[in-house]
Amino acid sequence: YGDFGDFGGMFKFKGSILVSSTDGVGTKSILAHDVFGNKSLVNLGKDLVNHCVNDILVKGAHPLFFLDYFASSNIDKDAVELFVEGISQSCKSTECVLLGGETAEMPGVYIDGKMDFVGTIVGCLDEKDVIDGKRDVKKNDVVIGLRSSGPHTNGYSLIRKLVRDELLDDEFVKTLLEPHRCYYRDVKRIRERSIPIHALCHITGGGLIENPKRVLPDGLSLKLNDDFEISDMFKILQVKGNISDNEMLRVFNCGVGMMIITSEMYKNDILDMFRG
Amino acid sequence: YGDFGDFGGMFKFKGSILVSSTDGVGTKSILAHDVFGNKSLVNLGKDLVNHCVNDILVKGAHPLFFLDYFASSNIDKDAVELFVEGISQSCKSTECVLLGGETAEMPGVYIDGKMDFVGTIVGCLDEKDVIDGKRDVKKNDVVIGLRSSGPHTNGYSLIRKLVRDELLDDEFVKTLLEPHRCYYRDVKRIRERSIPIHALCHITGGGLIENPKRVLPDGLSLKLNDDFEISDMFKILQVKGNISDNEMLRVFNCGVGMMIITSEMYKNDILDMFRG
Repeated sequence: YGDFGDFGGMFKFKGSILVSSTDGVGTKSILAHDVFGNKSLVNLGKDLVNHCVNDILVKGAHPLFFLDYFASSNIDKDAVELFVEGISQSCKSTECVLLGGETAEMPGVYIDGKMDFVGTIVGCLDEKDVIDGKRDVKKNDVVIGLRSSGPHTNGYSLIRKLVRDELLDDEFVKTLLEPHRCYYRDVKRIRERSIPIHALCHITGGGLIENPKRVLPDGLSLKLNDDFEISDMFKILQVKGNISDNEMLRVFNCGVGMMIITSEMYKNDILDMFRG
Repeated sequence: YGDFGDFGGMFKFKGSILVSSTDGVGTKSILAHDVFGNKSLVNLGKDLVNHCVNDILVKGAHPLFFLDYFASSNIDKDAVELFVEGISQSCKSTECVLLGGETAEMPGVYIDGKMDFVGTIVGCLDEKDVIDGKRDVKKNDVVIGLRSSGPHTNGYSLIRKLVRDELLDDEFVKTLLEPHRCYYRDVKRIRERSIPIHALCHITGGGLIENPKRVLPDGLSLKLNDDFEISDMFKILQVKGNISDNEMLRVFNCGVGMMIITSEMYKNDILDMFRG
């Protein structure tokens, strides 16, 4: 059930479908810790949960429970506590139970002081509520982008390179470390109004180029409006880093963290909801 | 639902209970890769699944699905393939679906050539089938130990120290790297005979000292028979490493990977099953 290359795997269980996804935060953790020290751990915990919630949300699932894994060269109890605090906050706001976790101290595996974080989420939905772009998206459907809070958890290898080359000023770097925005409540609001969603696309690694392909039927492609502009934060990144348009669209979400694809007729309803 | 410090977290869902656990293989991966190179990845995949299956088995759950995470300083496609092959084999033999996974390349986090592996399992059971030692174990119950295949996934920091000090010969070290034994079929056979299990105890970190406490009611403790002996492999380890009895029992499973606690009256039935 579900295609390879999907965000969340699907499993039929007792008339429902369980959807599960496992993910890390990548190298964002390095930059965040360099800038904010242990305080960064709260937001990294949020990053992890929010990323996972978005990954199953695109199938139409709501979260049931979450498990975390924290590993490092040496376990700093303060760091773990702050990390779990961030996880707990994001779990609470997405109605998700923090069911378990594991910490591992491995000095021979991790570079001194470096950490890795892995989260696994399990959610569920009824079969009739499955969102399946490959089945439902039609020609001339509209695509509405929901704003991202920043690069979310992708593109930090490139950002770190720019930081090393001293191309970005400190205050700007801080703004790049906002936690991954969670779209759980936004999607919930749309569904509560019974607006049919043909596809949701979470913009992660591969940016605006690779991700839409994963939810569109063969033969259809996404067309950006002529007046589409990447958001200010990403414009600054592009200029300071002298990055090509193509690379920007491939590496970053460029200001759009989640795409909603629906019929033209619902366009204004959705836009009105997010205008206020 | 479920206590902190438990192996697997429990979540009520549609009249069933979902049980989930997340775990790594610890530093066994370093030694295994030093000895066997990329070939070690097949067994490390098995280690990961088997460890996770055992962790939910002790609650009475059977596996539904599994997700894996593979991270390293650089992603070696051969290594990932071999790892997934091991995972697939163990999933097949435990009737578990491999539902998803993630790989991450993080040169700034992992020491060059080193890897970490994380697995998450979700299983289920009916409420009436929950195994709860704290509720069910009684004074004078018998404890039957099922043999381990080796140290499983615990004690490798100590083993690696002995290897570095050149106290262990190469052939012996290889025997220490057998994959974690999975007790899924053993427990299934016991339950099919309707033998009531009061508790199951998976012997992981903390060895024979710490793990039993986690499943026994307050006030009860485990008494090893006077003729209990640690198995030959562990005797060799103890002698070569000059390790105290207490440290052996705290670090290793000492030859017992899973304990079954039941009434005295079922002792011979179970012993007969595992004698053949």
